[in-house]
Amino acid sequence: MNTLSPSPLAMVPFVSVDNMMRLVNSIGAAQMILEICEYIEADFKRWPEFDKTPRVAAHSEEGVIELMPTSDGEYYGFKYVNGHPANMARGFQTVTAFGVLAKVLNGYPVLFSEMTILTALRTAATSALAAKYLAPKGAKAMGMIGNGAQCEFQALAFQKVVGVETVRLYDIDPLATEKASRNLKSSGLNVIICRSAEEAVTGVDIITTCTADKQNATVLSDNMVGSGVHINAIGGDCPGKTELHRDILLRANIFVEYPPQTRVEGEIQVLDEDHPITELWQVINGQADGRTSERQITLFDSVGFATEDFSALRYVHHQLKNGGHYINLDLLADPDDPRDLFGMVIRAKSAK
Amino acid sequence: MNTLSPSPLAMVPFVSVDNMMRLVNSIGAAQMILEICEYIEADFKRWPEFDKTPRVAAHSEEGVIELMPTSDGEYYGFKYVNGHPANMARGFQTVTAFGVLAKVLNGYPVLFSEMTILTALRTAATSALAAKYLAPKGAKAMGMIGNGAQCEFQALAFQKVVGVETVRLYDIDPLATEKASRNLKSSGLNVIICRSAEEAVTGVDIITTCTADKQNATVLSDNMVGSGVHINAIGGDCPGKTELHRDILLRANIFVEYPPQTRVEGEIQVLDEDHPITELWQVINGQADGRTSERQITLFDSVGFATEDFSALRYVHHQLKNGGHYINLDLLADPDDPRDLFGMVIRAKSAK
Repeated sequence: MNTLSPSPLAMVPFVSVDNMMRLVNSIGAAQMILEICEYIEADFKRWPEFDKTPRVAAHSEEGVIELMPTSDGEYYGFKYVNGHPANMARGFQTVTAFGVLAKVLNGYPVLFSEMTILTALRTAATSALAAKYLAPKGAKAMGMIGNGAQCEFQALAFQKVVGVETVRLYDIDPLATEKASRNLKSSGLNVIICRSAEEAVTGVDIITTCTADKQNATVLSDNMVGSGVHINAIGGDCPGKTELHRDILLRANIFVEYPPQTRVEGEIQVLDEDHPITELWQVINGQADGRTSERQITLFDSVGFATEDFSALRYVHHQLKNGGHYINLDLLADPDDPRDLFGMVIRAKSAK
Repeated sequence: MNTLSPSPLAMVPFVSVDNMMRLVNSIGAAQMILEICEYIEADFKRWPEFDKTPRVAAHSEEGVIELMPTSDGEYYGFKYVNGHPANMARGFQTVTAFGVLAKVLNGYPVLFSEMTILTALRTAATSALAAKYLAPKGAKAMGMIGNGAQCEFQALAFQKVVGVETVRLYDIDPLATEKASRNLKSSGLNVIICRSAEEAVTGVDIITTCTADKQNATVLSDNMVGSGVHINAIGGDCPGKTELHRDILLRANIFVEYPPQTRVEGEIQVLDEDHPITELWQVINGQADGRTSERQITLFDSVGFATEDFSALRYVHHQLKNGGHYINLDLLADPDDPRDLFGMVIRAKSAK
């Protein structure tokens, strides 16, 4: 037997950035967000089945590196993700990520994937899912403060899942707004470039905040938020990083993914620890109320949770059969006799 | 610019199983263990610099999947490792692993590597390092109970680092002993096949236990251990899994890697929580005594700690320049403008 030809057991499918782009372009970005949204919704509905833990974070002066594991008992998944606000100025991505899906039964990985693009898709899908349950009925206009890497994904998600027709864009850097507007040209969305945050939120049903500073900032002040609005707050996602004025939080009904993580990382870190919140999964499976009146302000305080990455990896894993946008890596040592790891190594030498 | 050619920033060197075997065979297994041992020793000496946490484990009926992160402030590393005792009977490896080394400054991975083979090397290197400080002076004979995947790596490590000349092998399955004996034929070690654990430990200076059952077993009973011996206990490494009779522990001076993890996973899980132990790193950098008398029984209660994987990844990372046993994977999305992730994806379509 040729020990240099790894057995199929040694192989793990790898989806590179290039192959992830092929997958997105073959399905269509908006359609893929919709499909991932369905996977996330299905997994939120069976929330109690998941083994949940706040992410494991290594903080440094420059940023954070996090591992986000979870399991549904059949599969285990984790994501590696960094967040380095100073990266952009140095020509690096603020957030990069990759992840693994593995079988619980034998611990063998079944998928290794880039997740920088996939995280952008699943974050937008999660926002749109929350809005589907929380935004005012028939919402057509969304204001977007912060037009960075997440902006276009959010816009497409709200168009496809919620039915938004108009997006009003504002960023402190007009070049970011121009970039987003250009990328959304053929989306069918009515894109309006605004010169202030106030202008961006005028007359809208939904406000999305996705700025990236690693500090407490007030991109949305209390007088900018009228009754009946749904706020989709994406940017506040680590200790000391928030986007909304505290008074807005006090007027809103707040919905979160996983309270032990959001209390530390989300907008609600500035509130008392026992401030009432509702878990999104309970709204989705009918155990808790979502929006109950037209005048209510709903706030999705999103920080991103491991189950959403799990859902996205599960989706990509299912797509491997369709189109084959992956290569196999011999990541796992698989000797003929599992106890003969050393023999496999030394025989590889003589086989050459 | 061709957006389908990823920039160098997008690339992460990947060391496959095949390339790890090439690296081992180009350096020589024993020599590579010695060199990894030096990296582990150097990192134990600067132990306080590391960000340490017990591994993050997802237990199931069949086994465990663990993430083992650590950082020295400059680099961040983690290992994914499974432990599934029932895997061998199904033709899978009991333990498979892979790992990542990343820069703390920007969070970008600089190495993605198989770690099934690398873990075997670093585990043996750590055992030999502990024995260098704890085994009786001039130790020449070692008894080995359990002749599975780890056995030959341990034998070579103790030969190269400690000066062991004779290994006495015993396993409940004679085929495992035969396998190990065959693989060690050209090592220069005097290999003696034994028919019982008692025979294997007769007259030895060092006893290594590395069996793999996920349960409390007594592979070494009290009357088998004479004074002056060093015990290298590898197999007890998760809750409910131990190898030694409790009475041996009570007669021995016990040395561990990281107490918060060993108290839960190691042999000492059967002792009181305040039973005295010594941290190995303190012996290595001179802050604590190792062996102090000829009659003393020393016990290294090894469970494997994240810094050892970090040291091994650091070693492999340094080897990338020598010989180039790796390929580059486009794991990281790297758009020309960091904020234009969406534009990179859609431009990839039109570039085709």
